[in-house]
Amino acid sequence: MPAIDGSRLIGDLRELAGFGRYRTGVHRPAFSDADLAARRWLVQRMADAGLDAAVDGIGNVIGRAAGDGPRLLVGSHSDTQPHGGWLDGAMGVVYGIELARAMRDDPACRGLGVDVASWQDEEGHYTSFLGSRSFAGLLAEDEIDRARHRDDGVPLREAIARAGLAGVPRARLDAARYRGYLEAHIEQGAVLESGRRRIGVVTAIVGIVVYRVTFAGDQNHAGTTPMRLRRDAGVALTAFCNEVHRELAELAGPATVWTIGRIVLTPNAPSVVPGRAELLLQIRDPSLAIMETLGAAAIRLAEAADRAGPCRVAIERASYTEPVAMDEPIAAAIEGAAARRAGRGWMRMPSGAGHDAQILARRMPAGMLFVPSIGGVSHHYTEDTAEDDIVLGCQVFADAAEAILRS
Amino acid sequence: MPAIDGSRLIGDLRELAGFGRYRTGVHRPAFSDADLAARRWLVQRMADAGLDAAVDGIGNVIGRAAGDGPRLLVGSHSDTQPHGGWLDGAMGVVYGIELARAMRDDPACRGLGVDVASWQDEEGHYTSFLGSRSFAGLLAEDEIDRARHRDDGVPLREAIARAGLAGVPRARLDAARYRGYLEAHIEQGAVLESGRRRIGVVTAIVGIVVYRVTFAGDQNHAGTTPMRLRRDAGVALTAFCNEVHRELAELAGPATVWTIGRIVLTPNAPSVVPGRAELLLQIRDPSLAIMETLGAAAIRLAEAADRAGPCRVAIERASYTEPVAMDEPIAAAIEGAAARRAGRGWMRMPSGAGHDAQILARRMPAGMLFVPSIGGVSHHYTEDTAEDDIVLGCQVFADAAEAILRS
Repeated sequence: MPAIDGSRLIGDLRELAGFGRYRTGVHRPAFSDADLAARRWLVQRMADAGLDAAVDGIGNVIGRAAGDGPRLLVGSHSDTQPHGGWLDGAMGVVYGIELARAMRDDPACRGLGVDVASWQDEEGHYTSFLGSRSFAGLLAEDEIDRARHRDDGVPLREAIARAGLAGVPRARLDAARYRGYLEAHIEQGAVLESGRRRIGVVTAIVGIVVYRVTFAGDQNHAGTTPMRLRRDAGVALTAFCNEVHRELAELAGPATVWTIGRIVLTPNAPSVVPGRAELLLQIRDPSLAIMETLGAAAIRLAEAADRAGPCRVAIERASYTEPVAMDEPIAAAIEGAAARRAGRGWMRMPSGAGHDAQILARRMPAGMLFVPSIGGVSHHYTEDTAEDDIVLGCQVFADAAEAILRS
Repeated sequence: MPAIDGSRLIGDLRELAGFGRYRTGVHRPAFSDADLAARRWLVQRMADAGLDAAVDGIGNVIGRAAGDGPRLLVGSHSDTQPHGGWLDGAMGVVYGIELARAMRDDPACRGLGVDVASWQDEEGHYTSFLGSRSFAGLLAEDEIDRARHRDDGVPLREAIARAGLAGVPRARLDAARYRGYLEAHIEQGAVLESGRRRIGVVTAIVGIVVYRVTFAGDQNHAGTTPMRLRRDAGVALTAFCNEVHRELAELAGPATVWTIGRIVLTPNAPSVVPGRAELLLQIRDPSLAIMETLGAAAIRLAEAADRAGPCRVAIERASYTEPVAMDEPIAAAIEGAAARRAGRGWMRMPSGAGHDAQILARRMPAGMLFVPSIGGVSHHYTEDTAEDDIVLGCQVFADAAEAILRS
């Protein structure tokens, strides 16, 4: 089995974290100077690992193994959230490079090989899953034409040109080349830590549905409007929140999460009866049937609130992605490797966050492996994972990759 | 009885509304150019009514009747909310001027007299009840030194200097001169309209207490944090809102109003479990005892929520003003005049909004009279009152003033 080199792995991760370092984390949004410098460094590291590597026309770094035996595509993303963690995405890319090196150094792996990718803009500063969608053939030219940076409005085309990538072809998936896609990532939650497990075998990436619920009442002076004459949109909203939490708790599956993360009252002033209120209700589940059951319940509660009055209540689906199942033979390969290397310290689990694997799963068998996040912290510069867990995760990743290639 | 001239009254109100006109309302915040021009116009109108009028060192317009018979102080404010209504404040000032003219023109009123005031910044752009507090001896120099415009931060001293009032003395109340203070105002609510009454006899100005309630949980990724591991500050907040609304409804008096007008979740993003949440709960009542009962209930609920967990809940009193009773003989005089002029078309009621009368009531007997607001609209340029109601209100105001002066 390919033996990964833990100190070489950690050394590369530390060096990559120097690009855009922010306190103990990294600020390396897609197409920032730090992101582009990191991608150039990745090309060099991949080349050193014996891969034929380049940055493609959308900013993906792709390193191809020589020869034409069975190939596995592995990777993740090296762009980050603003002031994000040092491992989110980066770890999965460096796992891929370390795996390529370990296979090259292991005579028993002759003929096997991995292609390694760092997808661009997984975090969606311009548009979600930009790089993996481009590679999977799920990104049209006119979407690139339209995309702008969500904060400063810079056109994606301009960012591509500034990166020196205008006119460079976008790499496209040749699905026949691969046995499948394998991605490692930090968990971004505390399920592994709280269950004292070191490896998560991902069974599915959850679907996400977001409902926008709006409440329309009458804006009034909070001193001169008697209670009986009020149509308070804030009162209607908080009553609805409680009903949703009660009802969804009844209907939820074991992995369901739902969140009312955003509430806006209008005008949101202490002396004014709110005339309008809005919330976003997000539901995530690995099961499409459960998502649909909970969504129907939210719609039913909103319609009942509208009928009951005194405020008008409207609900609309603001966004929707379906759950994506991971490939069972790949999950079984990860599970076998985890059992060998970590005894009982692994578990099957869905991913509550989105990943490039959900894009590539539309074109070929795909699987994911998680390592624990300390305290469940994610999307923050304090995100971290124990070094032992990082090294163990990479060895399980390597064992699983070999098993998939030999299957 | 002094006969007011309805068309002269309406004419003056329309002319005053020309200063800072905004659509069908007025934009005339304290110390704006429009406000200062309106105050110079008021000085002239008061002088034409036979009063000795001037703008004092804080921006109050005060017109004094000649002679030294019994005097009544009457008035309101001519500054407005941003893009506010044409009658809010202005009506009470012009009622005073019309009353002075009607008394001057009525031989039976010889020896009686009113002093008329337009207080400065009742709406509190620099500080609340600036002018009436100055006149009542309740505004220290160092508060003037500190006060700044709530939006642009301009120091009040600078605004006073720009108005040409630096060094001008502030007028001060000589309480012995007056039988009391009488103020007319639009209701700013829909109680009169919904009860088909044309005159409100104000019994008290409500007290206002505001509680800030904060909820501290854990900010987490909304996809990767299982429900059982969450401490969602938004869930704690909406549950508390429902308990407050249920409990205060049980304890409320006939005139109690309470409002949760402001809610802020942090970070208020659809994919993040709120780690912190805050609301402002405002309670108003004419009875101190009821205010205290409801306040104690809110504190009890917050403490119980804190004990129950999982979030920490803290409550603090953010602001507080006591209820102020109106003088009963003055209220009886308004009531008598209303009964004569409007039959059964009047009612006793508390004021749910604050007024300069609550400041002057601390120094002498005070009373207030309301006229209906169409649709209850207030602090908006569409605020309005039927002309017949404006004219009726002024005649009731004049009759009551005479009765108080003869008492």
